[in-house]
Amino acid sequence: MGNTFGHQFRITTWGESHGGGVGVVVDGCPPRLKLSESDIQPDLDRRRPGQSAIVTPRKESDTVQILSGTFGGKTLGTPISLWVKNTDARSEAYNEMATKFRPSHADYTYFAKYGIRAWPGGGRTSARETIGRVAAGAIAKKILREKFGVEVLAYVTQVQSLAAQVDAARVKFSDIEANIIRCPDQAAAVKMIRLIEKMRRAGDSVGGLIEGVARGVPPGWGEPVFDRLEADLAKAMLSLPATKGFEIGSGFAGTLMTGRQHNDAFRMKGDKVHTLTNRSGGIQGGISNGEPIIFRVAFKPVATVMHEQATVTEDFKNTTLKGRGRHDPCVLPRAVPMVEAMTALVLVDHALRHQAQCG
Amino acid sequence: MGNTFGHQFRITTWGESHGGGVGVVVDGCPPRLKLSESDIQPDLDRRRPGQSAIVTPRKESDTVQILSGTFGGKTLGTPISLWVKNTDARSEAYNEMATKFRPSHADYTYFAKYGIRAWPGGGRTSARETIGRVAAGAIAKKILREKFGVEVLAYVTQVQSLAAQVDAARVKFSDIEANIIRCPDQAAAVKMIRLIEKMRRAGDSVGGLIEGVARGVPPGWGEPVFDRLEADLAKAMLSLPATKGFEIGSGFAGTLMTGRQHNDAFRMKGDKVHTLTNRSGGIQGGISNGEPIIFRVAFKPVATVMHEQATVTEDFKNTTLKGRGRHDPCVLPRAVPMVEAMTALVLVDHALRHQAQCG
Amino acid sequence: MGNTFGHQFRITTWGESHGGGVGVVVDGCPPRLKLSESDIQPDLDRRRPGQSAIVTPRKESDTVQILSGTFGGKTLGTPISLWVKNTDARSEAYNEMATKFRPSHADYTYFAKYGIRAWPGGGRTSARETIGRVAAGAIAKKILREKFGVEVLAYVTQVQSLAAQVDAARVKFSDIEANIIRCPDQAAAVKMIRLIEKMRRAGDSVGGLIEGVARGVPPGWGEPVFDRLEADLAKAMLSLPATKGFEIGSGFAGTLMTGRQHNDAFRMKGDKVHTLTNRSGGIQGGISNGEPIIFRVAFKPVATVMHEQATVTEDFKNTTLKGRGRHDPCVLPRAVPMVEAMTALVLVDHALRHQAQCG
Amino acid sequence: MGNTFGHQFRITTWGESHGGGVGVVVDGCPPRLKLSESDIQPDLDRRRPGQSAIVTPRKESDTVQILSGTFGGKTLGTPISLWVKNTDARSEAYNEMATKFRPSHADYTYFAKYGIRAWPGGGRTSARETIGRVAAGAIAKKILREKFGVEVLAYVTQVQSLAAQVDAARVKFSDIEANIIRCPDQAAAVKMIRLIEKMRRAGDSVGGLIEGVARGVPPGWGEPVFDRLEADLAKAMLSLPATKGFEIGSGFAGTLMTGRQHNDAFRMKGDKVHTLTNRSGGIQGGISNGEPIIFRVAFKPVATVMHEQATVTEDFKNTTLKGRGRHDPCVLPRAVPMVEAMTALVLVDHALRHQAQCG
Repeated sequence: MGNTFGHQFRITTWGESHGGGVGVVVDGCPPRLKLSESDIQPDLDRRRPGQSAIVTPRKESDTVQILSGTFGGKTLGTPISLWVKNTDARSEAYNEMATKFRPSHADYTYFAKYGIRAWPGGGRTSARETIGRVAAGAIAKKILREKFGVEVLAYVTQVQSLAAQVDAARVKFSDIEANIIRCPDQAAAVKMIRLIEKMRRAGDSVGGLIEGVARGVPPGWGEPVFDRLEADLAKAMLSLPATKGFEIGSGFAGTLMTGRQHNDAFRMKGDKVHTLTNRSGGIQGGISNGEPIIFRVAFKPVATVMHEQATVTEDFKNTTLKGRGRHDPCVLPRAVPMVEAMTALVLVDHALRHQAQCG
Repeated sequence: MGNTFGHQFRITTWGESHGGGVGVVVDGCPPRLKLSESDIQPDLDRRRPGQSAIVTPRKESDTVQILSGTFGGKTLGTPISLWVKNTDARSEAYNEMATKFRPSHADYTYFAKYGIRAWPGGGRTSARETIGRVAAGAIAKKILREKFGVEVLAYVTQVQSLAAQVDAARVKFSDIEANIIRCPDQAAAVKMIRLIEKMRRAGDSVGGLIEGVARGVPPGWGEPVFDRLEADLAKAMLSLPATKGFEIGSGFAGTLMTGRQHNDAFRMKGDKVHTLTNRSGGIQGGISNGEPIIFRVAFKPVATVMHEQATVTEDFKNTTLKGRGRHDPCVLPRAVPMVEAMTALVLVDHALRHQAQCG
Repeated sequence: MGNTFGHQFRITTWGESHGGGVGVVVDGCPPRLKLSESDIQPDLDRRRPGQSAIVTPRKESDTVQILSGTFGGKTLGTPISLWVKNTDARSEAYNEMATKFRPSHADYTYFAKYGIRAWPGGGRTSARETIGRVAAGAIAKKILREKFGVEVLAYVTQVQSLAAQVDAARVKFSDIEANIIRCPDQAAAVKMIRLIEKMRRAGDSVGGLIEGVARGVPPGWGEPVFDRLEADLAKAMLSLPATKGFEIGSGFAGTLMTGRQHNDAFRMKGDKVHTLTNRSGGIQGGISNGEPIIFRVAFKPVATVMHEQATVTEDFKNTTLKGRGRHDPCVLPRAVPMVEAMTALVLVDHALRHQAQCG
Repeated sequence: MGNTFGHQFRITTWGESHGGGVGVVVDGCPPRLKLSESDIQPDLDRRRPGQSAIVTPRKESDTVQILSGTFGGKTLGTPISLWVKNTDARSEAYNEMATKFRPSHADYTYFAKYGIRAWPGGGRTSARETIGRVAAGAIAKKILREKFGVEVLAYVTQVQSLAAQVDAARVKFSDIEANIIRCPDQAAAVKMIRLIEKMRRAGDSVGGLIEGVARGVPPGWGEPVFDRLEADLAKAMLSLPATKGFEIGSGFAGTLMTGRQHNDAFRMKGDKVHTLTNRSGGIQGGISNGEPIIFRVAFKPVATVMHEQATVTEDFKNTTLKGRGRHDPCVLPRAVPMVEAMTALVLVDHALRHQAQCG
């Protein structure tokens, strides 16, 4: 269970790293939207292994096919089924994984839950699972852009302790894509890349922070109580592999301020209500206030390292395991399109829900 | 929309700070559980305004009534309807709120969304909305305790920059309840209380951190992809008023470690799989691993301060607004039972879901 | 579980025939709709026992209170909580029910499911459970009427073998309410009432058919596959107590025609697409086509009869049971507002869903 | 929207008659169930066009592939993705359909809803949409059989006015499959087949009734209010193309009896509660009572006939349209596996839900 996300714009993902591939069914897409594979493939290419020197070298083309839901290049309003075939199935490379649980992976917990697990490539615990999300997110971004004038961006702001300076209100897509770490602060990016290369050589890994921003969201999207916009964003982000934290607006640092310091004063800007600061991160009481929505996501260092580590076997004996073969020293550049996708999925869902009740 | 939470153990809350009261309907509760108001009232008393010198002095008894779902003191398996009457309706005290939006409250966003808002006491944006959650959470905690042997606790670990030392694996309920700030580090608690009293005198407010812990959760609860246990916890926490962040296990600090440092090595402990460290926070790949589930929630300082602040009117003119009357310098002690409640609601829902698919 | 109905306009009912009452929470209602108890009470009066000589004489005023969700006489967009107190609690009248299962009631199945049951008055199996539906349905009907120009009606067309002649496209509310059986064919109504009175004297009961009609539904409401409009109507109707069947348009009789005879030819009527016949019942492929939506619901005879019947005890021994006291010889007149309510709930939900995706 | 069915055992179907195929994602399947394509293909073969002389001659092999969710021949607990390629794409045969709405099909309503439609082969309104349901239903039937000892069967009991005599409590699968109309009354089957052949020659079509039965369902499955077992069955059946009615147990005919005649008396049979008659159809108050669940579904005659019929064009002018090419004189034999599938999907969902709350 739990492979479906969204209420009005609803996606269901499927697939393991072995087997026939991975995919997603998108239900609730507005009709008559122009859509072809070329709207989706670029984001899959940004998520793909082997795209640069600092990510895992797995060679997968991750080519998407639209199996349903369009006609004459336009969406029909019926479910859009997207499929990416598995190609790089070298399962023999993983033999030790068949009998041992990788530390800080989900091998053990899947086995504890289901009494069975697909060990080659990690099965559904593989990051390949996110392909469906990124593909669906590309559609969501297109709807937001074309129907609602909303732009969604994400970028790396920190790798281990290396922090970037980014102005979320002005950052551009081209600045993010200008380097392989996807950090729009070009000077910081250089240092980050150097650190990741060092980690790769050391067979180790690093994590960091990704910031997400949505600009152009009108006031009024979101729901007041459980389905607050920030709550749905938090869920969306913590549903991504390797995430350990989420904060919006002032976030954890906001706890160091007093109420007088923290409050966002309202002022009119022309005929629009505006806040002088944006500690709220664009959301108040679960509902967008028209300011940019800004949040950060913490990603732990990738669990697979090229060193021997203590673990246990599937028949519950102590042992050790050493990562071999392909190694991803930093998930962050590939996680950027995932954060964008999940953000867009949350927003388009809330846009349609708002239209339902208050339209 | 969005006033329902949970999939198999499902709660729906309702109510504004004015009107007939607030309440909750709990659907999916296992039958034959002993249940009376006395199981629920203690948590409402912990959430109640006026409970101590450091919280808002609103005087509300918040007495719960069970309207349905039990017979002969036991649950029937049918919906449990819980109701708390509103008593302290002094709406005249809030007159200015009728025409002005309070900064960093949800007055403006509700108005932007619905074109109408219940200004007395903040309507549904009032913290009274959480009464239903805390009441339902008391039932959830009882189920967890009696059917599954799981204990859920929450406590304050930081007020502004004052941090406490707490061992999440061993902390006791009595240590938490030993002081009015609900911090089990008694020395830190004294300083925290002093700070809050100072804020009250200054008409200002402070925020901080609450840590939640669930002990005794067996391996296997949770779902792999969107409904990961940590994702549902993140949503649950960010759905609470005044929250700005969530982190689990190593959280944001975990991004400063390398993979080698961060990974939780598995070791057998008797016949049980155990991790030597708990940076995962008890959850791996969305599923519990048997270690204590540990997370932290960031609460911003309360938005109502006794000082003049810039804002706008409902007819969109610049103005100022000064908080008057009752003032809550720190929401943390009252938020502790809210965090517990939401944690318990997530866990019991996943316990029942696990039973459905894998039972 | 299962006490919630609807996707975008969502109701959750609660309550037993004993205890604090029955109620409903309505989530997703559009904001700024004028709403007071006087919009709801008339339908509850039509559902109420004791309203005429041919229904059960239980004396309950069934007075509704709005506990939340409105302000200044208008809906807020937040959950509307409606409550009807229980007043007629004479549980001692039912003593035998505590130990014996009434035939063709749900006493046994509830006990089999939950291992506990609230026997006084039948607990949640009581028809009082439908109060919440009728109350929520009154709101749904108001939205349909005021926002969408849709009129929903229901009426009795058959009691046992006594059939009425009714033109669904033209029947008026006043014709339905002109007699106590709620059959707009006044001549048939006289015979029906006479039959029911005979049944009452005989301590027996009769069932029959209720026809529902929705006029003014625009083309395009409904969903293509599982949530077809007729599928949701079928579920809605079969969720009412004592229902045994549902048919739409030509229904079961339509199986006697050939395709050539059965097909509804399209013709333009001004600038509107129109069908020359309406065997489709206003819905094609799950989606409304602009013609009146017409369906029929079969209600079995009420199970409580004033005669000794074979049954078993709660400790599984054969015994007999004779109905005593108040007796409802025909549920149909009171079921009319239930059918209306469920129809309106389905339609308003689909109206809002359509607005979400295609608005 | 609306392409997902089920709460704990949840399927999402996708696909049009043109394009990349049709499929289904099954979420919530218990782990460690043996599963391969050979468990699914037989039911698809029973649903397939061209299987006999009395159904549409479209030649499609409808070969299913499992793309995910299994490993080593067993289910993983993760989503099972099933795919059937489209092969018979002769879209040129349908040219007139591009500009005209077929009477009593969903061409017009889809166009009214979405402003676009996939006319070749009917797009998603094609009966190919049911492939996903039948495939998922095969899994559901296997779970019911192996985990719960429940057998689900369906069969034709009436074609136009030709009725069969079938004992639902004893009918066997082999008797159903013994003839091409799938009617276990072999004498009636002969007449039915003759009638359908006559219709085929006349370019016309007939409908009829399918009866569904589930044997071995234990007491206690189902939910009391909206998600009653019979309500979910009614929705499931009315979600199938060409259905016009549903009745359970005594159904519409039950309205002709009095309460005394209709009630099912309880008697002990060994240590089991049993009813002497089964007018309830195995369900009381929404919950199974241990007797066979028996219901009937009305299918209208297929809308495509080889005769000229009045209709309108996509630009809203009166015209006529004559069905050409392949023609299905009776959907019933192919609908039998659809009814089985939907029955099994409802039952396994309720089995898992029951396990969640009461397990």
